[in-house]
Amino acid sequence: MKKFGLIGGIGPESTIEYYQQIIKKFKELTNSNSYPDFLIQSIDMSKVLEHVSNQDESSLVEFLAKKIKIIENAKVDFGAMASNTPHIIFDKLSKQVNIPLVSIVEETCKIAKSKELKTIGLLGTISTMTNGFYQNVAKKHGIHIVIPTKNQMDYVHDKYINELLYRNIQQETKNKLISIVHDLSKKHAIKGLILGGTELPLILNQDDFENIEILDSTKIHVDTIVRMMISE
Amino acid sequence: MKKFGLIGGIGPESTIEYYQQIIKKFKELTNSNSYPDFLIQSIDMSKVLEHVSNQDESSLVEFLAKKIKIIENAKVDFGAMASNTPHIIFDKLSKQVNIPLVSIVEETCKIAKSKELKTIGLLGTISTMTNGFYQNVAKKHGIHIVIPTKNQMDYVHDKYINELLYRNIQQETKNKLISIVHDLSKKHAIKGLILGGTELPLILNQDDFENIEILDSTKIHVDTIVRMMISE
Repeated sequence: MKKFGLIGGIGPESTIEYYQQIIKKFKELTNSNSYPDFLIQSIDMSKVLEHVSNQDESSLVEFLAKKIKIIENAKVDFGAMASNTPHIIFDKLSKQVNIPLVSIVEETCKIAKSKELKTIGLLGTISTMTNGFYQNVAKKHGIHIVIPTKNQMDYVHDKYINELLYRNIQQETKNKLISIVHDLSKKHAIKGLILGGTELPLILNQDDFENIEILDSTKIHVDTIVRMMISE
Repeated sequence: MKKFGLIGGIGPESTIEYYQQIIKKFKELTNSNSYPDFLIQSIDMSKVLEHVSNQDESSLVEFLAKKIKIIENAKVDFGAMASNTPHIIFDKLSKQVNIPLVSIVEETCKIAKSKELKTIGLLGTISTMTNGFYQNVAKKHGIHIVIPTKNQMDYVHDKYINELLYRNIQQETKNKLISIVHDLSKKHAIKGLILGGTELPLILNQDDFENIEILDSTKIHVDTIVRMMISE
């Protein structure tokens, strides 16, 4: 069994989601009553958001590398960050640390590739949709990522921050999000849609779409993490 | 700021409760938008329960000491266990490790002492009520702990395991728990009541009692932990 360390707290609720999903997936894959042994280093999200909003990438890398050093000292074999946002500096960060980090973006794009989805939509915060970190990784895998219009992205971001983060699920919001996805589909013929934020699966799921494959990034991330934990 | 490590997973839901309460208390006490930096080592509860049910104290101490070694390597200044149950071997465990551990039992009894509560009731799982670890610590502080009758304890334990752990709150259960506490009060004139399990505050709180002080052990534990984290 490999030792795993999670960098959490960037969205505290998202860390809890990872915690619960890791335990559930572990029990499912091992088909046992055992619980996984793993470490969570919860960090100060206000520092992360400050560096992100100042677009100060080197401070963000330095800050996160220090936190990963803590789980390195605790002798974990690999790590991951429980949030999409800091993946903006994933490559630089990976070079600064001594353990492999599992990228939510890489894993999600790999699944899209294995399902032969060539053009896929992306929903998340404004930062996740527009900073290009999903787009760049997808491109390496021959996948084209498309995003909503500026107005639609503002709507998605606003509802994400002001409703979903509080687990406030409104039918009206759900309908509007579905129509934004249908609009993306009409314009770009998307075959898949990345839910690039932990709370999006609360409001959108596979049952809402007939010909679009839903890629729940957290679920995909957790799946890889747990498979790595139980690998020899 | 002191570095803190939590041993969690003994009840995974209880670990989430600690996580949320630590963040809330930290923001409250520091009056800031910052979030606390801390570590959680989540362990295999099935191993803990196995050693507890085999009454194999030395294996339990050895198992937990190894997990605490992990947070020691990560250079935390102090640790705590997010569950009442393993406090059965708290003293032995403390001697085996190199960091101070904050005991939920000690902190709860200290608060009872500071409030001059001489006789207090205890609710929790059968293990927590009958293994004597609360009683022994309380005695050192000149406090007498009383527990319900065998039948009443079976009822409390059953409802704890089969309803409260699933966050299933029944008015009938609440009424019966209140009547058990009133019975304790009639027989022993208790002035306080320890809620010795993370889920008990879901069903019982101060508003349910007029002349009995409610001691929420998790809340008291978290309060001490966060005060220690922010101390110089």
